[in-house]
Parts: sequence; structure tokens; C-alpha cells
Amino acid sequence: MSGNSIGRSFVFTSFGESHGPAIGGVVDGCPPGLALAEADLQHDLDRRRPGQSRHTTQRREADAVRILSGVFEGRTTGAPIGLLIENQDQRSKDYSEIAAKFRPGHADYTYAMKYGFRDYRGGGRSSARETAVRVAAGGIAKVCLRALAGVRVRGFLSRLGPIATSAPDAAGFDWAQVDQNPFFCPDASRLPELEDYMDALRKSGDSVGAEVTVIAEGVPPGLGEPVFDRLDADIAHALMGINAVKGVEIGAGFGAVAQKGTEHRDEITPDGFLSNSAGGVLGGISTGQHVVARLALKPTSSIRLPGRTVGLDGAATEVVTKGRHDPCVGIRATPIAEAMLAIVLADHLLRHRGQNTHVTPPLAPIPSGRG
Amino acid sequence: MSGNSIGRSFVFTSFGESHGPAIGGVVDGCPPGLALAEADLQHDLDRRRPGQSRHTTQRREADAVRILSGVFEGRTTGAPIGLLIENQDQRSKDYSEIAAKFRPGHADYTYAMKYGFRDYRGGGRSSARETAVRVAAGGIAKVCLRALAGVRVRGFLSRLGPIATSAPDAAGFDWAQVDQNPFFCPDASRLPELEDYMDALRKSGDSVGAEVTVIAEGVPPGLGEPVFDRLDADIAHALMGINAVKGVEIGAGFGAVAQKGTEHRDEITPDGFLSNSAGGVLGGISTGQHVVARLALKPTSSIRLPGRTVGLDGAATEVVTKGRHDPCVGIRATPIAEAMLAIVLADHLLRHRGQNTHVTPPLAPIPSGRG
Amino acid sequence: MSGNSIGRSFVFTSFGESHGPAIGGVVDGCPPGLALAEADLQHDLDRRRPGQSRHTTQRREADAVRILSGVFEGRTTGAPIGLLIENQDQRSKDYSEIAAKFRPGHADYTYAMKYGFRDYRGGGRSSARETAVRVAAGGIAKVCLRALAGVRVRGFLSRLGPIATSAPDAAGFDWAQVDQNPFFCPDASRLPELEDYMDALRKSGDSVGAEVTVIAEGVPPGLGEPVFDRLDADIAHALMGINAVKGVEIGAGFGAVAQKGTEHRDEITPDGFLSNSAGGVLGGISTGQHVVARLALKPTSSIRLPGRTVGLDGAATEVVTKGRHDPCVGIRATPIAEAMLAIVLADHLLRHRGQNTHVTPPLAPIPSGRG
Amino acid sequence: MSGNSIGRSFVFTSFGESHGPAIGGVVDGCPPGLALAEADLQHDLDRRRPGQSRHTTQRREADAVRILSGVFEGRTTGAPIGLLIENQDQRSKDYSEIAAKFRPGHADYTYAMKYGFRDYRGGGRSSARETAVRVAAGGIAKVCLRALAGVRVRGFLSRLGPIATSAPDAAGFDWAQVDQNPFFCPDASRLPELEDYMDALRKSGDSVGAEVTVIAEGVPPGLGEPVFDRLDADIAHALMGINAVKGVEIGAGFGAVAQKGTEHRDEITPDGFLSNSAGGVLGGISTGQHVVARLALKPTSSIRLPGRTVGLDGAATEVVTKGRHDPCVGIRATPIAEAMLAIVLADHLLRHRGQNTHVTPPLAPIPSGRG
Repeated sequence: MSGNSIGRSFVFTSFGESHGPAIGGVVDGCPPGLALAEADLQHDLDRRRPGQSRHTTQRREADAVRILSGVFEGRTTGAPIGLLIENQDQRSKDYSEIAAKFRPGHADYTYAMKYGFRDYRGGGRSSARETAVRVAAGGIAKVCLRALAGVRVRGFLSRLGPIATSAPDAAGFDWAQVDQNPFFCPDASRLPELEDYMDALRKSGDSVGAEVTVIAEGVPPGLGEPVFDRLDADIAHALMGINAVKGVEIGAGFGAVAQKGTEHRDEITPDGFLSNSAGGVLGGISTGQHVVARLALKPTSSIRLPGRTVGLDGAATEVVTKGRHDPCVGIRATPIAEAMLAIVLADHLLRHRGQNTHVTPPLAPIPSGRG
Repeated sequence: MSGNSIGRSFVFTSFGESHGPAIGGVVDGCPPGLALAEADLQHDLDRRRPGQSRHTTQRREADAVRILSGVFEGRTTGAPIGLLIENQDQRSKDYSEIAAKFRPGHADYTYAMKYGFRDYRGGGRSSARETAVRVAAGGIAKVCLRALAGVRVRGFLSRLGPIATSAPDAAGFDWAQVDQNPFFCPDASRLPELEDYMDALRKSGDSVGAEVTVIAEGVPPGLGEPVFDRLDADIAHALMGINAVKGVEIGAGFGAVAQKGTEHRDEITPDGFLSNSAGGVLGGISTGQHVVARLALKPTSSIRLPGRTVGLDGAATEVVTKGRHDPCVGIRATPIAEAMLAIVLADHLLRHRGQNTHVTPPLAPIPSGRG
Repeated sequence: MSGNSIGRSFVFTSFGESHGPAIGGVVDGCPPGLALAEADLQHDLDRRRPGQSRHTTQRREADAVRILSGVFEGRTTGAPIGLLIENQDQRSKDYSEIAAKFRPGHADYTYAMKYGFRDYRGGGRSSARETAVRVAAGGIAKVCLRALAGVRVRGFLSRLGPIATSAPDAAGFDWAQVDQNPFFCPDASRLPELEDYMDALRKSGDSVGAEVTVIAEGVPPGLGEPVFDRLDADIAHALMGINAVKGVEIGAGFGAVAQKGTEHRDEITPDGFLSNSAGGVLGGISTGQHVVARLALKPTSSIRLPGRTVGLDGAATEVVTKGRHDPCVGIRATPIAEAMLAIVLADHLLRHRGQNTHVTPPLAPIPSGRG
Repeated sequence: MSGNSIGRSFVFTSFGESHGPAIGGVVDGCPPGLALAEADLQHDLDRRRPGQSRHTTQRREADAVRILSGVFEGRTTGAPIGLLIENQDQRSKDYSEIAAKFRPGHADYTYAMKYGFRDYRGGGRSSARETAVRVAAGGIAKVCLRALAGVRVRGFLSRLGPIATSAPDAAGFDWAQVDQNPFFCPDASRLPELEDYMDALRKSGDSVGAEVTVIAEGVPPGLGEPVFDRLDADIAHALMGINAVKGVEIGAGFGAVAQKGTEHRDEITPDGFLSNSAGGVLGGISTGQHVVARLALKPTSSIRLPGRTVGLDGAATEVVTKGRHDPCVGIRATPIAEAMLAIVLADHLLRHRGQNTHVTPPLAPIPSGRG
């Protein structure tokens, strides 16, 4: 298995470049008999799709996904599911500048050093466009999780640069709000502040980072394999594998550094866990509480303000990004993070069934208590 | 490959429980012809070994590693390297309490729910004892990295609970100090404060979290495989796979959330990169700069202060930890984190050679500039 | 990695059903910088294509492959290569009979028992149609092998039912003949006999088995990984993974059972090996001699002569195949076998480079001597 | 995963050389709760053990296996199972001749070319000694298969050089006989002929090939993953991965080449399949019939009769094997082949459960009919 596949039992393989004819992928190992149609995947694809507000890039793509195989009479067959999304908006653009220079903060230099040359059109394989197929595959994982275990995966933008939006236990937090604004913000009262911030940022020509929180509810206890493929380790792998991510936390995360043991450990009563510092994972295995992860996204490196760099010839030069770009890539990252979390959970659900189907646990699951 | 193996080309498989006869592992895929002896691995094992100061658990283990295969006349042969560490200090202890209750913050409950029962002696497979073999395998990875690419991997304790120790660009930072105190602290002037803090903590019966920083120098550009097995994603997987870790950052990490693009992007000049917000990885591929990662470790859950929990019978009860435990597991985590980072880098070095041996990059590597 | 992928470093993933919209696949891990165009793959696809003589099924497919990614300006980029072949000849046929009965010798029953139901249109995923994508992926492997190591992979029909066609050391054997007749027969003088046999067979309504021989020339010594992923073990896996294959041999194969050691062992002189009973593999590693493998293909189970079976209701019934079918599936198997052998060799070439790039062997390779 | 591991869900990793301190391995992914003790594995190890009759090598090894982990209070825990067998009979022998020459038919030359040098003591990693650990791991797989699915795996010597011993449907065939003679021959009346043949062979200084048949009874329908990891393809991989194997057949095997479709296809009635040409596998998935495989083993290359070869210096020389060697390696191969078949079946049993646990097949399994 090379680097463009993820998972062991529920395996997703991705292909495609920003400006090639199409992007696509294959989901292998999906259980048979699940109701699945293209429309089930399109909803999340539309949530990720650019050009839906003035706060994201204006590239226009229908992002219509086709299922090419593995579904028969509306149900998965157990055979691999081929996915295809045609690239439509391949503007005939002059790439001579980007071809000759390495944009700071981008993968231009590293691809060139690894492979000797690179497909420079729109970032090629390193473009965020590739994440559209992940969202489609994540949609299949969500169907699988819901049908087999009643798991629900969703997320929201928890920080936009300096602004913390909200948290599940905060007043004003409302899951229903998340899909009703272009920011994936769970608190409608914060929207004016976010819009003002983004308008000023766009005007300045600069970009900013963001933080996304993803939560899985209803995860049964027992998912995750010690000692390397822990559930949290595989979540970290999947989320750090999203473009622009620089950090991943589970539960208390970096906050645990300054915590005392009495504070961090989640005490247990017959009515459930009294807290969830663990983020739903102990010893690499799910506890049955909500699985909670956060990811830090760096500011877009493609900005209108000039930056120093070198060319293919090694000589000093300057680069300025023109054209369509997200001033905050984190804004559209929520559906992508959900997709990656769903893929990891679906994979571990199947892995767990493979090894432990006949196992009788020693007691009924502890109620999840405080998510 | 199941959950107790890590890597694709340089593959490490681990086995063993805290109180079984031995722990051990297998390193497969190591290049042949490298000089290797048990003494090369023992140095890091001794750094990780408990009982070396009053600040860590008093369990006494020689942790002497034996190489059982894969080395002939002092050189690796290309065959798998079998590693074995006998468990010596298996105190005949009364485990009846731990057998009947789920310790909060521990893997007791999750192992029981996953597997139906568990080896409760000293935490069994979930014990930090298992990490000794990782350190041995990491020692082989370090030998491999040094011989094939001149890479050096090292780390230090960057935070102990509320106390930030030092950072590579801080006054007083000294790599040579790290191995001369029980805290892996790089600044000797901070030791009194750390000792006072730990003495008070131990007296209180509580525990605390910590943060470790690991750095790899000399990493050639080009390591890492887009899009899922990015170098940073695999580092996140490996570090989050260490017991008690709740968060992982690369480069600017969570600090990138509040950064502007002009601030974060690492500009390039013919003399090198002007900064290293990227932490040595762009688009999932190494840049040639220092690879910099940080990990957050939660406070030990085994503390002397009583905590609420339930028993195997589901009834409410209380648990108090007696005996030998680290009040801050993060203190001994530095060699473990180095080992995991080294394993990931060795794996990607071999993966890169496999695909890209004949490739000629378009220019000489950019100097690494600011680490 | 689930069952629809093959390889570790050069990884091919396949998807698609006989009567879905398309079949396709992804080749991941291909080295960058190789000249590659769709035409390079089309040649072998045309060799495998049905309907080119009266001796194979009359289903008509253009089998035109599209490369969707991983190639830029005529060269591979190192990114995954997406492949797509549209299904054209999806006759609107009445599948009610095949839907309700299990055809003997087919995968109908086993798919139904494994997955609970099946895509019964034309065999669905178990159709030989899927092998078209393998041939395309094998074409990429051939390009890779030729460019990186000068390896050439080719094959021929060595037996058609009771008729042995020819062997590389036989009088009349001519590689150039293989592609000039519909049987992949290397000896033109045997064609009348083959045609007569097939005409009589077709008339009888029955089918027959076949044997194909594949040979790789120029394989460098050193490919293959002891002890499980031996080169010959991976070849056996790949060839036994072709539809209808029931046996695989390397070198002397089953003939070795009755051989003496003095007869079998390939003695060595400074001018090369004196024989090739080993089929180019010793201890699981290539010797530098020709790699020689043979595969046994069973007779097509879809025949016009009625056979007993049961229906979905478990009741006894009878099945008769109407319509288009190959009376000898082995006839078109040569390009498929070449493709699978090429995929295994390309994978092991990259795996070997990954582990052993810097190795200096103790002597210059022994000449390959007698292939 | 590198070449010394096999399986995806039930994963076995092997290490060790013929004359190192120990050989061993790790079984990962074994379901928890299975009764397992060292004695369960020792039986097959004793069957494989050399030196038990005059017809096999006189090397004396106790081959006592130790379970180092993964078992607690007599049951598997779900954690990896570490296995260790000390090497005892490491005669201090003069290896200077074997160190300087490449023995024909051995892996000496290929290891040297792959890795640059080799552990020449007794064949090092390529020695059949390594298969002892496979037999131990296969013993765990047998326990798993029996407990979870009632599967039984056993085998016998079906050919010794020119002598066909017996077949399951032959008069005189008796499973109970197999373990009561040194040949694994199922027909006691054939023993004098076998003994005479072997005595003459040993006297001549030459060696001979053999064929082993392995059969799994009670395999549930549904195991195996199309299209590459078919059950038969994975069996071929596992059996071809045994030292000295040159061919593998399933069911009718190479006999299928000359069969007609009417003859080969296994017709089905409500009382079961009417034959088993398929060898229990259709479309890569088990049918519920007996899984039947045969493997061809080449004659031992280590013989007392001199053979031509070259030395490390490339110059012509001669080699004569002195000392302890099996004149027919196939004789002791039966337990090894059983182990490899059991490992593949256990792996596919777990893989199948992972993907298809909730699936309801359309009808009750067809009786297996004629094995």
C-alpha cells in the first residue's frame, strides 16, 4: 500500500490532480447490503464546494460525484466502490510564473525535490481540490457507521484566527446553525464578527489560520487497536493528513500538559463517566463517550502580498498570488475533517468485528455520561 | 498488518506485557551492511529506564536488550532483527483489587470491553513497559538514519505541568544538558524549580502532564508520501501512539491558528528558508529543514488520591493507587518520542528510495536556513 | 489494504463490474519521470480484447483506456495514475434466469453466500472483464521495468486442452509468431491443428482448459523478499489470482517431484548457470536467469450443454448458457498473465531498491546462461 | 509490512537464522478468549522435528516453543503472541568452504547478490529451520479455526519422487496412518516401498522431490476476497513461500488443462456438489467443500555428489555437501504445509467477519457433497 490509500479494512485510495481531467478514488472493503446512492455523498460535497460565499475561493465546480461500481439496485455489493468527479473549471491560465518559482509555504519545492519535476497547474496533486474525493469517501463511511453502529460524525469551526466561536457546552451553541452559515459556526450571534473579520482580512490581502472540532457520537466501546494503530493515533494520522493541518488534539489535548491527575482522569459512576478529558479514547480504544478531536489549520500561503522565494534556477525572486484563493482554508475544512474521522471510525469498526465478533464483554457498557 | 506493527518498509512489530516473561519485537526491512550491536541500543534504553531518580517510578529493570537475529559479524544482514528484553521485576503482588475494578483514566475498561477480559497485572499490554522495545527499535532506526543520510534525532522536555523549560532558540538552551539531569531539561538553571515542583507534587499524591519536543536534523528533502502517508501525518500517528499522548504539533502547530499568512509562510532566499513555521514539512514532504514536533502527555492516572469508579459488577466503588508510579509520565517520554520519530523517518527514507532512486531534482537543496 | 489491491510499493487497485458504467483502477507508487501515454497501454488491451477471432467471445468492447491522473507532459509524476475504461456493450439482456440460479463452476453461489446477494449481470465483479484494467496496469509495470531495469515480459499459450503447442527450446518456436495468430501460439505450423480443435469444440457446445507460459528476461538478481514475500510466492499469488487459474508452477514445477537432486540443481560456471530448473528464483530471490512461470486454466464453465444446479430457493434445476462466451478462456489469458507477472516484478524492483540501494554485491552477476 | 510477515488480520511475523541464538515470531490479531497453551503447539513441532527417523537429517533440536505474551490464565487476550524457540544444536563447524562458494540450487548466490553478504552458517535465514516457527504459528491458527468455525486442517505425502502414495478416495487411504510413519504416508501398505526407495537414495548420495497434499474440512462458504486476495491466490502465496516448493495446485490443478467443461464444472444438487474439481474455491471464495491443495517440492540441493559452481572470487570450483541433510525435504513438509494453509484460512476467516458479519446469505449452505 502506498501513500495514497488509508485504512486497513475500510480502505480508501485517492487519485487526481487539480487541473487534470478528473479526480477520483476507490473505497474497498465496504460491507454489503447498505443502501447507497450518489445523493448520499453529494450533500457533504456541496458543503465543501467552493464559491458558495464571498469568503471562499470563487473557483466554480459542480463537484458531482459518480459511483462507477460496487452498488447494485441501490445497495452496496461488497465490491470496491469507484468514485469519479470530473474537473470542470480548468481555466486556461498562464502557469509560466508558478512553473518557474517555488511558492513559499506550498509544496512546490518539496514535490520538485522528491520527484524531480511537478505538475504545477493549480498545485497539481497537492491542491485542496483532491479533498473533494475524500468527502465522497467519507460519505460512504458515514453511511456505514450509521447503519452498522448508529454513529454520527459532525464538526464545526471552533476558531477563526483570533476568534473562538463556540464549544458544545457553551451557551448559544447549536448544531443546527452549523450548516446555515458559510463559516460552519455553531453560534449565529457570532456571525457578524466573523464576517467583519473576513472582510477586513480579504481587503488586507493576507490570510489567517483556523481550528476545527470534530465529534463522533454513539461510537461503541472497543474500537482501536493497541499499540500503534490506536484509535487516537489513527485519527491523528488522518487529520494531520489534511492539507494545511499543523496540529491535532484528542480530548483535553495540549491542555492536559498543565492538568493535574485529579483533574484530568475521568471518574466513573454507574451513571457514566463524570467528564471526558480523554476525548472518548483510553489506551487507544474507544470508551463509548463522544470522540472529540481538534485540528489546527495554517493560514493559506497563497496571498496577494509579495513574498521572497527562489526560482528553479536557484536565484532570488518574488512571488505574488493572483486569482482565486481561500483567505482562510480552515473555513471549508469542516466537511473534510468529518470525512477523515468517519473513514477512521468505519475502518476500526470493521477491524474490531474481524478480531472480536464473538467476544462477550464483562459488563454492559457504562453510559457515556458527559460527552 | 495488525495494530502492533508500524511502518511499511522499515517495519517494527512489538509484543509483550508488563508482567509476562518478556517483552520483545521484530524490526523488518532494515538495510543490510550497517554496523549494529546491542550496545548501540542499550544507551537509549538506559535513558528510558525507570528508577534512576526519585522523580520516576522505583520499579527496577535492567532492560538489557538481546539481538536474536538479523546481525552477523557485527553487521545487519537484511533479515529481520529479533529483539528480546526479559521482565525481571515481576513482583508477586496482590492484583485482586485492580482485577475487579476499572481504574479511571486507564485502559482497564476499554480492554475489557474490547476483548471481554484483560491481563490486569500491571496494566498488561497497555503498560508503559512496552515502550522499552520501541526504544530498542528506535535505536536501530537511528543507526540506519545516521549511516544512510546523516540524520540526527533528539528531544527534550519542553514543559513540565505549568513550567516551560526552554526552546532551541532560547538563551540557556544546551543540548548537552539534556542527558545530564533526570528531566531531559536542556537548561541547567531551571533544574531547582523542576525539582521543587516535583517534590511538592509527589508529596501531594497527585500527578501532572508534560510536553516533549523532538527534532530531527539533517533530514534530506523529499521524504513523505502525499496524500495520506505524509511525513507529518505519519509522525502524528507515531507520536499519538505513545501512551498518555493527547496532542501532536508540527512546526507552528496550534499557534498557526492565530497566525497571518505573511507571518506563517517561510520565505525562501538562496541562503535558505527564513523561518521554519512548517516544522520541516510542506505538502507532507520534508523540506530539508529541521523536522520539529511536540507532543502533549496527560498526567498519570495512577495516583494516591482516591477516585470514583465502578467494578466488574457495575457497582460504584473507589480506587486508590498504591506502589510504584511515575508522578509525571512525560519525564521519561523523551527517548520514546525520539524512537518513534526515528522509526517514521527511517521508514520514509526507505520508501522514498524505493520510488525515487533515479530521480534528479531540479536544483541543489536549498540550505536549511533557520532550523 | 483490502482484496482489490496488489503490491506493496508498486500498488494496483482495481474496481468495476462487467455491466456497470465503467471499470477502472489506480496505480500508486510508480516512479516519476517515465514516458507514458495511453497508447503504451492500448497495445496489450487490444491483444486481450474479445471478438477478434471466431475462437473467442463476440462481446464487442473498444476497451479504450483513459489515463486520468499521474501523468504530466507525457511523463509520470510519481502521483497515483487513475485508469478508466468505459463499458460499452452492456446489452439489455434478460438476467432473470441467471439471477435465480447458481451456475455450476461460477462464483454465483460463493458471492451470494459471502455478501448475501450479488450483481448478477454478466458475472458482475467476477467477470473476466475486470482483467482489462489489470492489462492496463500491467502495461505501466512493463514501462517501468523496461525503463529502470531493461526487463522484458512476454508469454504464450503452451497447451490448449490436450495439445502442447511449443516451448522456448523447441524447434519451430518463434516469439514473433505469438502475436500473429488468435491463439498466442509461438509455432505457426501448429495453427491448423488448433483451429480444427477449437472449431470442433465450439460445435460440441463444450469448453476446454489451457496452459499459459510467461517469461521475464533481464530480471536483475536480488528481487524478492524472504521468507513469505518471495518472488515466486508473489508470482504464484498474482497468477492464481487470475480468473479460472487452478495451478501455478515456477521453473521445473511439478516436474521437480520426480527429479533427482543431481538433475534439478542448476550448476554454475563462470560462464553462467548450466540449466534453469529454478525458473530464475532461488530462496525466493531472482538469480538473473529468465523467470519462467506456467499457469493452468480450467475450462469455461459457461457452456451450451445443460448442467444440474440449484436455485436461490434451494430447489434442483438446470442451467444452460446461451449467448457469447469463450469456449477456452485460456486463449485470451496470455496478456493477462504477462500483466500480473509484470506487476509483481515492478513491485519487487521498487521494494529491493528501497532496502538495498547502497549495497555492493560481492561479485559481478553471473551470466544468465541457459534461460 | 515487509517480507517476513504474512496475513492481514491474522498476521504472523517470523525472525531468526539457522545458527543464531534463537528463532521466533509474533502472531498478531488472534481473537481473544481462546484456550491456548504451549502444548497445543508442541505436537505439530514434534511432527516437523528432524532426527526422528533415518530418513531425515540427524540435526537434533528439542524445538521447544515458549509463548512469551498474549496469553493470560490459559486464554488468548487479543494481544500479540510472542513465540520463541532456542537453537540448541549449533555445532561449531567449519563454515569456511560454504562461506567462499555458492552452493548450486541454494540461496547462497541470491542472498549475496541482494544483500551484499550473507550469514552463511547453515544457510542462515534461508534454512528450513525457520519453518519451525511457522509450524508454531500454524498451531495457533488451527486452534483459532477449530474454535471459531470447526475447521480441521491436515495433510499427507502424496508423492515421493516417482512413487504416488495414495489419495483420499483411494482404497487403503487412512488419515490415522499419516502420523504413524516417518513419511506422513496415509497407506501403511506402501511403507516398505518407500523405505526401500529412501534407503537406496541415501546410499546413492542423491536426493529426490516430493508432493504434499493439504486439505481443510469444514471451511464455511464465503472466505476469500476477490479479486487479488482470493482464497486460492493467498493459499498459493503461502504454499509457494515454503522452502523448495516449485508448484501449487488447487482442486483439479494442472489436470484442468485437459479437462472439458462438462467434466470440470462441479454440478450442484440440493444434496450438495457432485464433485470437487474446484478444490473448494470458486471465484476466489470458499464453497464449503473441502479446500484441497497440492504442492511440489524440489529435491534437496545439498547432496554428497559433487557439483560445479563458482566461488566468491567468481572462479570455477566444485562443491560437495558433507554432514546432516534431508535426502528428501518433502518428507518433513506436511506439518509446514498444514501450518501455512491454516494461517491463510484463519486470516480470511477474520477478514470475512470484519466485512460481512451482519450479512444474511440467501439460502442455507449447500451440503459439501463429495469432498
